[in-house]
Amino acid sequence: MNNIQAVIITIGDELLIGQTIDTNSAWIAQRLNHLGINVLRRVAVGDTREAILNALDEEWLKASLIILTGGLGPTSDDITKPLLCEYFGGTLTVNEEVAAHLKEIFGRRNRPILARNMKQAEVPDNCTVLFNKLGTAPGMWFEKNGKIIISLPGVPFEMKHIMEVEALPRLKQLAEGDVIIHRTVFTAGEGESFIAERLMPFEAALPEHIKIAYLPDSGFVKIRLTGKGAEVAVLEAEMMNLQNQLVTTLGDIVIANEDVTLESLLGTTMQGNGKTFGFAESCTGGYIGHLITQLPGSSTYFKGSIVSYDNEVKENVLGVKKETIEQKGAVSEETVIEMATGALKILNTDYTLAVSGVLGPDGGTERVKTGTVWMAVANKDRVLTKVQHFFYDRERNKEMAAKMGMLLLWKFINGKQ
Amino acid sequence: MNNIQAVIITIGDELLIGQTIDTNSAWIAQRLNHLGINVLRRVAVGDTREAILNALDEEWLKASLIILTGGLGPTSDDITKPLLCEYFGGTLTVNEEVAAHLKEIFGRRNRPILARNMKQAEVPDNCTVLFNKLGTAPGMWFEKNGKIIISLPGVPFEMKHIMEVEALPRLKQLAEGDVIIHRTVFTAGEGESFIAERLMPFEAALPEHIKIAYLPDSGFVKIRLTGKGAEVAVLEAEMMNLQNQLVTTLGDIVIANEDVTLESLLGTTMQGNGKTFGFAESCTGGYIGHLITQLPGSSTYFKGSIVSYDNEVKENVLGVKKETIEQKGAVSEETVIEMATGALKILNTDYTLAVSGVLGPDGGTERVKTGTVWMAVANKDRVLTKVQHFFYDRERNKEMAAKMGMLLLWKFINGKQ
Repeated sequence: MNNIQAVIITIGDELLIGQTIDTNSAWIAQRLNHLGINVLRRVAVGDTREAILNALDEEWLKASLIILTGGLGPTSDDITKPLLCEYFGGTLTVNEEVAAHLKEIFGRRNRPILARNMKQAEVPDNCTVLFNKLGTAPGMWFEKNGKIIISLPGVPFEMKHIMEVEALPRLKQLAEGDVIIHRTVFTAGEGESFIAERLMPFEAALPEHIKIAYLPDSGFVKIRLTGKGAEVAVLEAEMMNLQNQLVTTLGDIVIANEDVTLESLLGTTMQGNGKTFGFAESCTGGYIGHLITQLPGSSTYFKGSIVSYDNEVKENVLGVKKETIEQKGAVSEETVIEMATGALKILNTDYTLAVSGVLGPDGGTERVKTGTVWMAVANKDRVLTKVQHFFYDRERNKEMAAKMGMLLLWKFINGKQ
Repeated sequence: MNNIQAVIITIGDELLIGQTIDTNSAWIAQRLNHLGINVLRRVAVGDTREAILNALDEEWLKASLIILTGGLGPTSDDITKPLLCEYFGGTLTVNEEVAAHLKEIFGRRNRPILARNMKQAEVPDNCTVLFNKLGTAPGMWFEKNGKIIISLPGVPFEMKHIMEVEALPRLKQLAEGDVIIHRTVFTAGEGESFIAERLMPFEAALPEHIKIAYLPDSGFVKIRLTGKGAEVAVLEAEMMNLQNQLVTTLGDIVIANEDVTLESLLGTTMQGNGKTFGFAESCTGGYIGHLITQLPGSSTYFKGSIVSYDNEVKENVLGVKKETIEQKGAVSEETVIEMATGALKILNTDYTLAVSGVLGPDGGTERVKTGTVWMAVANKDRVLTKVQHFFYDRERNKEMAAKMGMLLLWKFINGKQ
């Protein structure tokens, strides 16, 4: 089955009224891409028979693979299973393996098993069951006229599990078309227009089968190259060469030649150097510690964070002087320096990052306007400070403060600043 | 224009390769719903002429309002504007207001203005410009055959700004159809099947124009009622009555009769009671502090958090005894009790929450399996502890630990536990 073209259909009114943000589609798209499967479109529809059937009919014409998520639960708004059964002309019958699994789950939780739960063991007799070890709704794999439809539960960790264990290995065997390769260069410090201007000769020389895209995000720009070709090795060499050209051209602003987060950049920097860091966070409220600890293994270099939201905590725990806060303000160069050096001692780390700012919407003054964020990074030998002014809403200002703080720490550790 | 039916089309290859999670659509859907505008479908397509034109042609037949986001930037992958201009048979002409705004932005940033930036001031002469105060790409409003197409930049804060200030007020004047009202009841402690079982008589008695949906998420279930009707007051009274029935039936597990987050539940509880809280976070790494400080005004009740990821920080900063950690382990009831009581002193707060666990994938032992999380909440009079076992991946285990911790704190403060 060459060049599989996929469409992802997500089912659920919660997606159409904005109650839920769809994270499933992005994850599925990534995994399909890894197999060289192109995602043509994503469609979200409501929990109605008409909407689902209509989407199936339309997307069926465009795609050779349809991945459906949602609508497989045990409640009345879950209508996907009987509908697919009917669509492919099957009959619902009990699958013994799923039935045994359901009994086991409810037994383990010491819960009575309800008729509506046992109904989840009924599957269309014309599909392959994709066993769901982590939940009660099995996935389903239908084939018709050389096309494939995969139906998965909408709960993200169940969907991911079934994809990893059941669906992707099967798809891998079928996917043998053109290879798709993405290469990303991650930059900081320049806007997309200016980067595009510097890349005009590069863009003009790009061959037809390689596309470029600019993804600006919170003060950073990712430049993505997407190539398509028949031969993996040939395409990889070509992409590598182009990526190197990008890195050379944009050398001063490149921080990584892959699509990574700042927390993993920091993780890579710290891994194996035997050093540790910790934070003194005020306006970020613990967000930087949260990002850092998303990575397994962060405990080898991250010791902790003093979230000193209240000035009393800055004084009592970090040892910031009362006079400094009174005379210079909680959002000032002097305060973040004392926060960083205080944290160095109390957390007993090699490096610290301190952040204090006014994120808004309120709290700004004539002297310290909303959006002002002071940062300091320190080791026992030196302290480096920086002030930034963000003009967005509270949430985005926090995001920016955390990212710019991590960037400053990364540059400091790597001797780039 | 009665009963506007909307479709949201998001444009960008980053959405189809999973590089970006689409948060725009959920936000847009919520806002449209508030005006009584129903969202029929959401479609994501790539940055190609064919994909965009095809989506426009198809969705045009289904909807009376199409909202497009993305593809309006200054780089070569941004093709939406000329394409829409052509689709509606217009000509690109310079808009003086936008041109002046661009010069002002680049002037303020002390940046030279490039030709590709000035191109952003060119708009189709057959659209209404939706001025973008926060960025360089203007929004556009087209009308044809009684239908509306709105094109917006994909950068979330710019999109939101244009919607709020320019698009929604105009749409509000046009939307005069049936009202849509959502009511949510937020529960904790029971699975969706069991809740559905308890609600069988309730579901059976629901009138045709009111739908029910179950949204399970991380140990919580939200039950949503969606009603549609001609008269606001009549429908509101009806929905209120049904919501009250739900609350009565599910009284023991209801934690709120609205769609709120745990951080805002805690905020509401603390607001005006003159008390404060703080945290001692180990495995959550600062995530609970982060969630709490997402809310403006949280500084009145949140003093800070000691993120004691390393045991040394638990001992040195929180005063957990070395013997406790050695004999009972860092993930134990004894340790979280000492963390909570230590934080009570050092943060000088009325309430504290302490969390310590093993999130995985590694770190589990025979005695403390991966997924085990101990929590303690305390005030000066008492300490309450709880242990939970989560079976998911690291990220989800952290999410669950944070939410269950906040729930325990909320119950403790409200005397429910």
